[in-house]
Order: sequence, then C-alpha cells, then structure tokens
Amino acid sequence: MKAEILCVGTELLLGDTINTNAAFAAKELAKLGITVYHQSVVGDNPGRLKESLAEAFSRADIVLMTGGLGPTYDDLTKETVAEFFGRKMYMDEPSLAAIEAFFNKVGRPMTDNNRKQALMPEGAVIFANKNGTAPGLAVGNDEKIAILLPGPPNEMEPMMKNSVVPFLKGKTNTVIVSRTIHIIGLGESYVESILRDYMLAHTNPTIAPYAKTGEVQLRVTASAKNDEEAYALIDPVVAEVAEKFKDYVYGIDVGTLENAAITLLREKGLSAATAESCTGGMVSARLTAIAGASEVFGCGVCTYSNEMKMQLLGVREETLAAHGAVSPETALEMAKGVRKLSGADFGISITGIAGPGGGTAEKPVGLVYIAVDSEKYTKTEKLLLSRGRENERTMIRTLAANNALRLLIEAVTKY
Amino acid sequence: MKAEILCVGTELLLGDTINTNAAFAAKELAKLGITVYHQSVVGDNPGRLKESLAEAFSRADIVLMTGGLGPTYDDLTKETVAEFFGRKMYMDEPSLAAIEAFFNKVGRPMTDNNRKQALMPEGAVIFANKNGTAPGLAVGNDEKIAILLPGPPNEMEPMMKNSVVPFLKGKTNTVIVSRTIHIIGLGESYVESILRDYMLAHTNPTIAPYAKTGEVQLRVTASAKNDEEAYALIDPVVAEVAEKFKDYVYGIDVGTLENAAITLLREKGLSAATAESCTGGMVSARLTAIAGASEVFGCGVCTYSNEMKMQLLGVREETLAAHGAVSPETALEMAKGVRKLSGADFGISITGIAGPGGGTAEKPVGLVYIAVDSEKYTKTEKLLLSRGRENERTMIRTLAANNALRLLIEAVTKY
Repeated sequence: MKAEILCVGTELLLGDTINTNAAFAAKELAKLGITVYHQSVVGDNPGRLKESLAEAFSRADIVLMTGGLGPTYDDLTKETVAEFFGRKMYMDEPSLAAIEAFFNKVGRPMTDNNRKQALMPEGAVIFANKNGTAPGLAVGNDEKIAILLPGPPNEMEPMMKNSVVPFLKGKTNTVIVSRTIHIIGLGESYVESILRDYMLAHTNPTIAPYAKTGEVQLRVTASAKNDEEAYALIDPVVAEVAEKFKDYVYGIDVGTLENAAITLLREKGLSAATAESCTGGMVSARLTAIAGASEVFGCGVCTYSNEMKMQLLGVREETLAAHGAVSPETALEMAKGVRKLSGADFGISITGIAGPGGGTAEKPVGLVYIAVDSEKYTKTEKLLLSRGRENERTMIRTLAANNALRLLIEAVTKY
Repeated sequence: MKAEILCVGTELLLGDTINTNAAFAAKELAKLGITVYHQSVVGDNPGRLKESLAEAFSRADIVLMTGGLGPTYDDLTKETVAEFFGRKMYMDEPSLAAIEAFFNKVGRPMTDNNRKQALMPEGAVIFANKNGTAPGLAVGNDEKIAILLPGPPNEMEPMMKNSVVPFLKGKTNTVIVSRTIHIIGLGESYVESILRDYMLAHTNPTIAPYAKTGEVQLRVTASAKNDEEAYALIDPVVAEVAEKFKDYVYGIDVGTLENAAITLLREKGLSAATAESCTGGMVSARLTAIAGASEVFGCGVCTYSNEMKMQLLGVREETLAAHGAVSPETALEMAKGVRKLSGADFGISITGIAGPGGGTAEKPVGLVYIAVDSEKYTKTEKLLLSRGRENERTMIRTLAANNALRLLIEAVTKY
C-alpha cells in the first residue's frame, strides 16, 4: 500500500511553523508497512489544494492530509476532498455535540463558524478530537482513501495514534514492528563492523544502527501479519544482539537518555542530583521532564559563577586557583559537593567552555569535564565537543548534557 | 518570482528526521519577496527525484533543493539537476582543495567518495561550505535556477543566509523587511481590537499580530526596492505602534524572552538568579543559552523537593506546612531565598504542578505560582496553565518558564 502526506497551511509555506506533523505521520505509516514516496505542503488555496490532491492520488492509495479543518472560511480541506470523491456535506450531530461540549469544558463561547467543523462528507468515518474542536475523518472508495487530520500537533498526534493507526490496521495485512537496543560507550562504526555479517544475513528482521549524540541505537525491525508474529521474529534477534554488546547495552526501548536514567534510578531505588555550569540546568530540566522524576531527583544547582561553585558546592578556592573552573578537579569537587548538599546517591557535574568566547589555546571552546560521584563509583571524563563549526554553543551544551546523562546511566548500571 | 522547495532524503520520508530545512528556507525566501506555493519531499531515488524536479520547474522559476549532496552512490541530486539542464560534470579544483582542507582540520581521513562532492555541473555558481564537505551550488539558465544545499541544518542554514540570500538578492528587485514589536501583559485579541482600523489603513507596511506563549508580537513588514527604502517605510509605523502600547512593549527585534531578559539585565548592569521547582532548571538553561549570560547570571537552583527548598532557599517549614509547596507564600520565599543565596539583584521563582499526577480539586494540574523579588520591586503571580488536554506536562512547564521570564523582564524594566 502506498501513501502520500499532504500538509495544508500557509504558515508552513512561509516557514513560520516547522512541519512536525509530516514526520509524525510518516513514522506511524512506516510502522504499518505503508510506503511513503512523497510528502508535500500547499497553502490554504482551493485551486492548488485540488491540484495537489489529484496529483497525490495519481500516485498513491492513501493521501493523509493535515490542516485546513479550522472554523474559518479559508479552511477548505474537507470541502475539497468531498468534491474529489463526489460527496455531499451533511451536519454530523455527534460531532456538533462534541464541539459544544468542548466549548463548555474550556469555558469559551462557541461561534457559528465552529458549526462548520461538524459538517462532514457523506460516508466519512469520523475520528473524535479530544483535544480541540476539529474532528478528523477518513473518506474514499474501494481504491482510494483520504485521511484528514487537524493541524495542531497536540490534536493531530493523539488522533493519528489512537484512531488512524487502528483504522489503517484493518486495511493492511502487514505490520512493521521494531525494537531498539540502546548502546553507550561504543562508536557507530565499531558496532557496525562487529555486526556487518550478521546484518547482511538477516532480512526479516533487519538490523540497522543509528548514531545518536553520545549513543548508538540498533533498530531491529520485522514485517509480519500481526504484532505477535513480528515480535516472535524480533525477540530472539534482539536477545542475540544485546548479548554481543552486553557490557554496553543500557536498555531495550528505553526512549531518551533522561527516561532511561530515571527508569534505572527508580528500579534500583537510588537518587541523583546535578551540579551544572556550562549546561546551565539542561540536565536537571531534562530529568524533571519525566513524570515521576521527583521520586529520584530532588535537587539540581546551576553554579555558573566561581563564587557559587564555592559557596553552594564547597569547591575549594585552591582548586579553582590551581586548575581553573574547567578542570577535572573542579568537576569532581562539584559532583561530590552536590551529592553532599542533597544527600542523593549520585552527584553528577558538568563544567566546560560552551563558547563562542572564553576559549584559550590550552582550554579551547568545547572542552568539557563531567564527573559522577557515589559511594561505590566515581569517575571523571574529559570531552572535546567542538567540531570547528559556526554557532556551536547549543550543540556543545546538548552534547555535554547527553554525555553527563550517559555517565549517570553507566554509574547506576554498575552500582 | 516563484520558488518551490524540494527536500531530498529517505530519512525525511520515514519520519526519522523533522524537516527544519524547509521552514528555514521558506522564511528566507519570504524575506526576499519570493513566493513559495509548494514544498515537497522525495527519497534518494533517481526516477522520482527527476519527476519531482520537472514538476517543480513546471510551476516555479526557482527550485531550492536540500540533501543528496553526500559522498555515497545514492546521493544523486547534483547529477539529476545537471541532466535536467543538459550540463556535463567537471572536477572543481577549488572545491576539492576545500574538502581536503576540511578533512585535515577535523583530522579524519578523506575517502575517494569525498572527491565526488567536488564534481560540479558546468556553469554552476558554487557556495563554499565552512561546516562540512558538500559545497552548495546554483545552476540554471535565463528562466530557471536550481539551488542545491547540503542536508544537515548546521551546514544548510549558514549557507542559505551567507551565500544564497545575497545570490538571490541580485535576481529579485524586491526586498521584504520586518521589524517585530514585543508586547507583554496584553492579550492578542485586545491588541488586535486597538489596532484594527490602523491595520486596515496600512498595506505597505502591513501590521500583523502573532500570539506567542506569554506575549504578543506585532510584525511590521514592508516591501521595497532595497533595505533602506523598506526601513524608511517601517520605522515611523513601528514608532507609532510602539507608542500606543508603550507600557507593555519590552523591545523591538529582541528575539526570544531569554534574549530580551539578558540584554535588559546587561544594559542596566543588574543580575538575576533562579529558583525553580516544576520547571526543573528550564529557565536557567534558557538564560545560559545566551552567550555572555555569565555577566548577569551566576546561580540557579532546582529545588524539586521540600527539603531542598528549606535547606538551600530557606523556605520555612511552617510556610510549607500551612500553604504547601505550590503556594504564593512558598514562591515568594523561594525568590527571596535565591536572591539572598546568590547576592543577585533579582530572584525569580517557579513552583507548580506540571502533572500528569499530583493535582487535587483545590490545587489542580497546571496551577503554578511565579514570583520575583528585588530591593525595589516584588511581585507574585498565580497562573492556571492547563487547557484540559492530554500530555500537558511539557506545555505547562514551558508556559511557566515563559511567564517567569516575562515577570523578570517586567521587573527589570520597572526597576
């Protein structure tokens, strides 16, 4: 089955909005074994929308559209699709009731325009919208199906996952299922060299490495009639591959580094605290992005100045004078200091030069020290994170935060 | 002049990469007064790439392409475009020398494949790549121009700004220039109601409001022959509009809230410190994202637990017992505490319930208190940030951080 993604919105054409919907939809379609060869974006213009729809259907069985379901006169996606399939519009009473209920809940007055959002092409399958006013829908015939979703990602994403995926599962006879093995402490090329023959020998499931900042992910993907058969193909391969890299695997399907860290800490009943300089709180912000972080994380400090490093973390004046703020000695005292301050099991610290200013020949931009301290395990690492590129500040800070999370995971795993 | 954006890459079709290049290019083209009616994405497939290129050129004068300039056999953008314009490929010696120099600089060995990246269609204008190995290029005839840029955003973005924009300025006889007025403390609909007649009366420049989280931006945009004429149209309107909202304008073209905050603090020679609970360090991470933040920001604490609120910030046990951690009293003691701890001129604090758990009837998810404390100006605010949607944790935290930055800007402005 072939699909195309057609996103509607002048804000996308002007670059005011980044098109995250296309990527989200593409990922979900790929998991269903549906091939996508084209994505496109058009504005809220009826002529060009009609043309693009016809063009997409000349190549694909399914056209998944986002946007243009709003209440204003220039929101025309539904009408254009109804015309394409020769369907009349009718007022869908359950959708209207849901829109009225939504306005009641958020306490805003409903306008007449919003009634338009309950107009539906005859024969459409309607997807309820729990997070906004525009219902989604699927409409088509035996050969072609258009799927229409609202533009705001917080409405589109749950509708895609909860309504469109089950709807499409009934249409395809294939599922594509993946598991991801997360590896730290080995480079992508090394992982690939170890696995090359094994990768070539396997076609279902396939095994593909992805280099992420500070880690390598191995994605094992199978195609089968249903989830059960797919996992039966995947799981032995995942076990075999994970065994090959066992000292470096920090989890299967654990998502982000911060999620893996929080999950591990919770499993082991341990806690962590952060002391950040050049990352300014990025690690604590990421750890606390995970719901339930409070069980294992109580304290982070961002000691940007030397005074605060001494006052809050007890970094010694002599250490700063002898080695500087960006040094393994300071990193270690920061990690020890925040552990003591917070009473946490692990203290992790980051100190470095994010640039663009502040670098010297001896201590260049991109030089970062990270440390972890705990009762049983203490380690300091030197990182050189500059790639000699322009505007590296954000990248250096992000890589430093990733590496600190990796070091924390490593320490908790070995604890 | 009409342009289309055509992004090449299987990783985009699979949804593994979000297409930020399209938005970036679209914004820059819009500023040049070049209209974009279509964006599309195709994979690294020669047949479909050729078709998409022909289709794009059937509608547009300029096709801006990203991706497919890499060293491997499936990177075919350059070859496809050369064929479209009937050009042969030649080895461009300056490009080859630049690629060799790049590998020397990063200390990695250059492979034979990388030589392919210096092959160019005859007659191409070449854009040097300071951040990677693939040069960009423009090639075409009197009517049609293809612009080819590398896929990685850290290579594509500077090349677009520094090479493509000046190249295209020579081709168009229009520039589009904007200034943005940043307003805090007023709602979008109120701003629009005050300006409606004024907006209708102006067509060049135009005035358009954009609602951002915690602020309203008014964009004043003029079209003219050159920058000078455009600013001559814009500047009197900006001055007039800014005067209408003078108590609420915190800057012109000041970028993000954190940038405005750091700039203001530096201008006034004042400093700030942060005490965060539910945002876990997001405000300190954002403030320190601005280069030079260290001049005005030395300390942030993330006191996620009550113990840390007491121990680090001196929040009183009685306050927590009587009012709870999420209360105006605790917020204020946190702001006062971090000001005292750090010696900064301003202490700002955030405490709230980001969810999904932890809410009660009395203190629901989304309830957040923010406070600012300084010698002359102290204020506490209650925020209700839930919109009754799913997965709100990230949104609530982001809105809380935005509002805290807004409160800081307000306090520094009035100081």
